[in-house]
Amino acid sequence: MRTSIATVCLSGTLDEKLLAAQEAGFDGVEIFEPDLVASPDSPETIRARAAELGLSLDLYQPFRDFEGVGPDLLDHNLRRAAAKFTLMNRLGIETILLCSNVATARSGDEQLAATQLRRLGDLADRFGVRVAYEALAWGRFVDGYETAARIVRLADHPRVGVCLDSFHILSKGDNPEAIETIPADKIFFVQLADAPLLSMDVLSWSRHHRVFPGEGGFDLGAFMGHLMRTGYDGPISLEIFNDTFRQSDPLSTAIDAHRSLRWLEDEAARWLGAAAGGRAARMSATALPLVEPPTGVSYVELRTEAMDDTRTLLQQLGFRAHGAHRTKSVELWAQGGARIVLGRPESDRPQPTVAGIGLSVRDRDAALQRATELSATQLHREEGAGDEPLVGVRAPDGSEIFFGAAGESEPDWVSEFGDPVDQGDARILQVDHINLAQPWQHFDAGVLFFHSVLDLRTQPAMEVAAPVGLVRSQVLTTADGVVRIALNLVPPAAGEDAILPQHIAFAASDALGLARSARDRGFRPLHIPANYYDDIEARFEIEPALLEQLKDLNVMYDRDEAGEFLHFYTAPIGTVFLEIVERRDGYDGYGALNAPVRLAAQYQQRRESHTGAAA
Amino acid sequence: MRTSIATVCLSGTLDEKLLAAQEAGFDGVEIFEPDLVASPDSPETIRARAAELGLSLDLYQPFRDFEGVGPDLLDHNLRRAAAKFTLMNRLGIETILLCSNVATARSGDEQLAATQLRRLGDLADRFGVRVAYEALAWGRFVDGYETAARIVRLADHPRVGVCLDSFHILSKGDNPEAIETIPADKIFFVQLADAPLLSMDVLSWSRHHRVFPGEGGFDLGAFMGHLMRTGYDGPISLEIFNDTFRQSDPLSTAIDAHRSLRWLEDEAARWLGAAAGGRAARMSATALPLVEPPTGVSYVELRTEAMDDTRTLLQQLGFRAHGAHRTKSVELWAQGGARIVLGRPESDRPQPTVAGIGLSVRDRDAALQRATELSATQLHREEGAGDEPLVGVRAPDGSEIFFGAAGESEPDWVSEFGDPVDQGDARILQVDHINLAQPWQHFDAGVLFFHSVLDLRTQPAMEVAAPVGLVRSQVLTTADGVVRIALNLVPPAAGEDAILPQHIAFAASDALGLARSARDRGFRPLHIPANYYDDIEARFEIEPALLEQLKDLNVMYDRDEAGEFLHFYTAPIGTVFLEIVERRDGYDGYGALNAPVRLAAQYQQRRESHTGAAA
Repeated sequence: MRTSIATVCLSGTLDEKLLAAQEAGFDGVEIFEPDLVASPDSPETIRARAAELGLSLDLYQPFRDFEGVGPDLLDHNLRRAAAKFTLMNRLGIETILLCSNVATARSGDEQLAATQLRRLGDLADRFGVRVAYEALAWGRFVDGYETAARIVRLADHPRVGVCLDSFHILSKGDNPEAIETIPADKIFFVQLADAPLLSMDVLSWSRHHRVFPGEGGFDLGAFMGHLMRTGYDGPISLEIFNDTFRQSDPLSTAIDAHRSLRWLEDEAARWLGAAAGGRAARMSATALPLVEPPTGVSYVELRTEAMDDTRTLLQQLGFRAHGAHRTKSVELWAQGGARIVLGRPESDRPQPTVAGIGLSVRDRDAALQRATELSATQLHREEGAGDEPLVGVRAPDGSEIFFGAAGESEPDWVSEFGDPVDQGDARILQVDHINLAQPWQHFDAGVLFFHSVLDLRTQPAMEVAAPVGLVRSQVLTTADGVVRIALNLVPPAAGEDAILPQHIAFAASDALGLARSARDRGFRPLHIPANYYDDIEARFEIEPALLEQLKDLNVMYDRDEAGEFLHFYTAPIGTVFLEIVERRDGYDGYGALNAPVRLAAQYQQRRESHTGAAA
Repeated sequence: MRTSIATVCLSGTLDEKLLAAQEAGFDGVEIFEPDLVASPDSPETIRARAAELGLSLDLYQPFRDFEGVGPDLLDHNLRRAAAKFTLMNRLGIETILLCSNVATARSGDEQLAATQLRRLGDLADRFGVRVAYEALAWGRFVDGYETAARIVRLADHPRVGVCLDSFHILSKGDNPEAIETIPADKIFFVQLADAPLLSMDVLSWSRHHRVFPGEGGFDLGAFMGHLMRTGYDGPISLEIFNDTFRQSDPLSTAIDAHRSLRWLEDEAARWLGAAAGGRAARMSATALPLVEPPTGVSYVELRTEAMDDTRTLLQQLGFRAHGAHRTKSVELWAQGGARIVLGRPESDRPQPTVAGIGLSVRDRDAALQRATELSATQLHREEGAGDEPLVGVRAPDGSEIFFGAAGESEPDWVSEFGDPVDQGDARILQVDHINLAQPWQHFDAGVLFFHSVLDLRTQPAMEVAAPVGLVRSQVLTTADGVVRIALNLVPPAAGEDAILPQHIAFAASDALGLARSARDRGFRPLHIPANYYDDIEARFEIEPALLEQLKDLNVMYDRDEAGEFLHFYTAPIGTVFLEIVERRDGYDGYGALNAPVRLAAQYQQRRESHTGAAA
C-alpha cells in the first residue's frame, strides 16, 4: 500500500508538515492549497524538498465549484484551472482534486457536468495533469460517489476520473459496495477518514470531527475491501480535518496517522479473507502478526517519590512485600494475581505515575513485532545478568507496555525479587482495570494504539462530570474482560492539580471484608458523603444492613442487569490512587454513576489538604 | 425579576457554587441533584448556608422517568419520590423538577400520565411540596410543552404544574406563543437557556452547548415576553450545560450569567413594548438605561515595554507624536481621527497589550450606568488636577472600555498632551477595527458583554486556520460599521507564543500610497509569500499593474459584491500588531480568506526570529 497524507492533517508550516510525514514513514503527501499559498517557499523549492525527503507529491487539492455552471462562469473557471495546472507543473504534481460544486452550479444536469468536465480534461491534457472528481456529501447537485462516477463515465476523458473519500460516502450511509463497479483506471485517488458516529450537520462533522481510521465508527475495513477488489493500486491517503490534531505536535500526529493505515491495511485483508470464506485468502504480504489478546495483567509498575506512603497503603490492603529486585531499584508487592512493581521516578524523562503495565501474552515476539510494525517505539532496558529480559513498547501517553509469557500462575521474574512476607488474608484476586490519563492532544491516538496493538475492543465512550469539567472516558477490553484499560481525557483547563486521572483497580473476593481488615490496619478510605447513601437507598432500595456497612466503610454501590458492584477508593499517592472492586454475579460496568461523587470527594479532599497546608 | 441559577452551571463544590451565585447577585439557586449527592454537607447544613448567604433554594432537580409506566414501576417510583420529598423537606425546598419520561414509559396515553401525576401530587401534598413537570425535547412520549401542559391540566392537582425550559421549546422550533394559554398559577418554574443554532442531535446540543441568554441564537426576548403576559412572577432561572463553563472560574461564570438575565429582562420589556406598538409600554422599573451605540473609537491605549519600537513604527506609518501627558506616564500619537495612547505596562496586574479602548458616546453617564447595571466593574483612575475624568468599565478579558463625549472632531483631553509634531502626509483616517484575544473560558462572556453593554451586533462567527489550530472569530459592530470589535478565541494549546491574537486596524484612504511612504521611512511590513499573489491572480484576475504593486508592497487583497479591500500588516510589537486597511466602494469584510496566510506568515516570522535568537 502506498501511503499518503494531506498536509491539512498536520500542524505547523508546510515544511514542518513534510518533515513529519517523512519521519512517520509516509510515501507521499497531498498538498492542501492553503498550505502552499501560505508557504514562503516557491513551488520549485517545495518540489525539491519533497524529493530530498523521498516523498511523492500525490495530489493538489482542492479545486472547487467548477461544473454545472453557465457559459461565462465556465470560462472563468477554466482560466482558474489553467493557473492551478501551471502551478501543478511547477510542483510536479500530476493529479488535482475537484470537489463537486457547492456554490455556483445552477443545474444538476449530469450531461452538462460531463461536458464541462470533458472541457477540463482537454485543458488538463495540455498540461499533462489529470482531474479526480469527488462528490462532497453536501454538494449542491452532486453529493454521492455513484453520481460522480456516472458523470465521469459520461465525460469519457482519459484525464478525468473519480476521487473516493470514505467520509463523504460513509457519513451519508451510502453503501460502498458499488465502488466495485468503478473501473480501477478511473479511480484516480482515494482519501480515507474515520469519524465518530455523530448526529450533526455533515459539514461541521467533516470539518471538525474526522479522525484517523480505527479511531471512529466507520467500517473502513469493508470500504477498503471493496476498493481492493477493483484492483486499485494508487495511494491510500488520509484527509483528516480535526480541531485537536491541528493543535498537536505534527510528528506525533503523523505517527498516529501512519499507524492507522498500517492497521487498516490489515483490517481490509481480514475483511477480504472473511468475505472469501476464511483466512486462506489473507494477503500474507501485508498481514500484521496475528496476536491473541492478552490473557491478563501480570503487573503494574508504579513510580512515585512517596515510597513510604505507598508501602503503608499496600500493606494495609493486604499486599505482601517481596522486597527489592536483585539488580534494579524496584521492589515487588503482590496479592493473589495482582503485582505492583514499585520504584522512584526515573529522572531522565517525565513519567506517569502508572509508568508501566505488564501484560501476559501467548507469543511475546509476535506481540512485539505487531506493535513495532504499528509504529510503536520499542523499549530498551538494561538487564542484570540472568534477569528475564523486558520486552515492550511505549504508548502515546508515555506509559510503557511490557509483554510477558502467559500461562504461568507465578511468572519466573518474580523470583528475581526477595521472598514474600505473608500476612494472612489475601482477598485481592488480580488487577481489575487500569485507568490511564491521556493528554487531550493524544486521546484518539491512545485509543487507536490500545485497539490496534493489543487488539482490545472499545466500549461505548462515557462522560463523567468532575468539579473542574467533564472527563471523557473510553474503556478498552479483551472480549473476556480479563484486561480492562480505561483511557481518560482530562479537560485542558483542569490543571494537574485538580484531578486524579490515573488509578489501578484491584478485583477482590470480598470488598467489605477487605475494607474492614484494611481499617484494622489503619487504612483510611476516601470519604464518601452521607448524601450519597441516601441517594442509593432511594434508587436501589438496598437492604438496611448492607447500606449500613457500605456507609460505615465508605464503600460505593452499583447494580446492573447481571449483578452488584461494590467498590472503594484509597487516598491519592501523588497523581495515582487505588480502587478495590468486587463484581458480584457478572456485573460488567465500572460504577459510572458513582464517578462524579468520587471525583467531587477527591476534589474536596485536595481542597482541604491545600487549605490545611496553607494554615 | 427574581433571578436563580442551577448549580450545574458552575464549577467547583456545592459550597463554592452557592458562594459564586450569591456574589454575582442571584436571588436563589436550583439544587442540581448530583451536586447535593456529592456534597459532604448535610441537607440541613446546606439549607443554613443558603439562608446565611441570602439565597433561596428554588428548585430540586431533576427527578426522572416517573410517568407512563406500569403499576409495579409506579410503586417503585412513588417510593423514590417520597425519599426525594423527604430530602426536600430537610433542604427546605418546595418545588421539584420532574422531567418527562425518556426511559421507562411504556405508553404515551396522556390520561395515564395525568392519573399517575395526580398520585404524585397527592404524595407531594403530604410533604407540602409541589411538582413542576417539564417536557424534555427528547422525551419518549412527551416532548413538547403543550403536551406537558395538557397532562398537567388533566391531572388537575394543586401540587402539579409545569416547568418551562426555553431550550426544550426553542431547540425543537416550537412556537412559544402558546405559553400564554397556560394559567400563571400552573407555571411552577421557568428555566432559561440560549444556544448557538447548531444542527446536531438535540441531546448533545443540550448537554454540551447551552449558553447564557444573549450568547446564542434563540429569540429569548419573545419567549420571555409571552411568559410575562401570563403574569408569571416566580423565579427566572438559568440551567446551562456547557463544557467550557464547567471548567471556568465559578464567580466569572456567575457574573456572566447574571448579566445575561439583566440584559434579557430589558430585551423582554423591549419586545413587549414593540408588540404593544411602541416604547410607551416599556416597563420603566426594569429598563436599563437606553444607550445609543458608540459613534466612534476615540482612542486605543497600548501598553508595551517596547516603547521605542512602537514609536518608530507609528512614526513610519505617519502618526504625529503629541508627546507626554501632563500628569500621567503616557504619550499620544495621532493621525486623522486615529489616536493611540502609549505607555508602559502597569505592574499591578496582568494587562493585555491593547489595554484600553476609548469609545465616543452621546451620554457617558447613561453608558456607564447601563454597563454597571449589567455587572461590569467600574474603573477608578486617579486624575490629575484639571484632567478630563476617565469613565469606564472592565471587559471580561481584562481590557478597559472608556466612555468619552461624542461629536467633537478633536476631544478636549487631547490638549492634556503636548502639541503635535506634524510630518506631512496623513493617510490614516480612523481606527477601522480592533481584534481582542479572548481567553477561551471567557469567549461567550466577552460576546455578551460587548453586545449587551455597548449594543453592538454580532456578525456570523468565523473560523480561521492558523498553523497551531483554528481561531474562532466573532465580529461585533455598530449598525453603521463605525465601531468594529473582533473577539478572537485562541485554541487552548496554542500557547502565548504561537499566535498574535490582538491587533488594531487603521482605515486609510490610500493603502498603497501609505505603504510606499512608510517604506521610504524604513518600514518593513509582514512579508507575504509570492504563492499568495499567484493564488489571488487566479481567483480574481487582478490587473497586472495592481498585482505588481500589491506584491511589491506586501499588501493583501480581497473583493466582495460591493468593492475591494487592500490591507497590510506590521511586524508584531510584543503580542500586538497593526494593520492598515483600505475599504473601496463599501467593502464590508475583513479579508477572511487572507487571515490564514497572515497567521502562517506571523508563525513563520516568529519561528525564524526564535531560530535567529538561538543561533
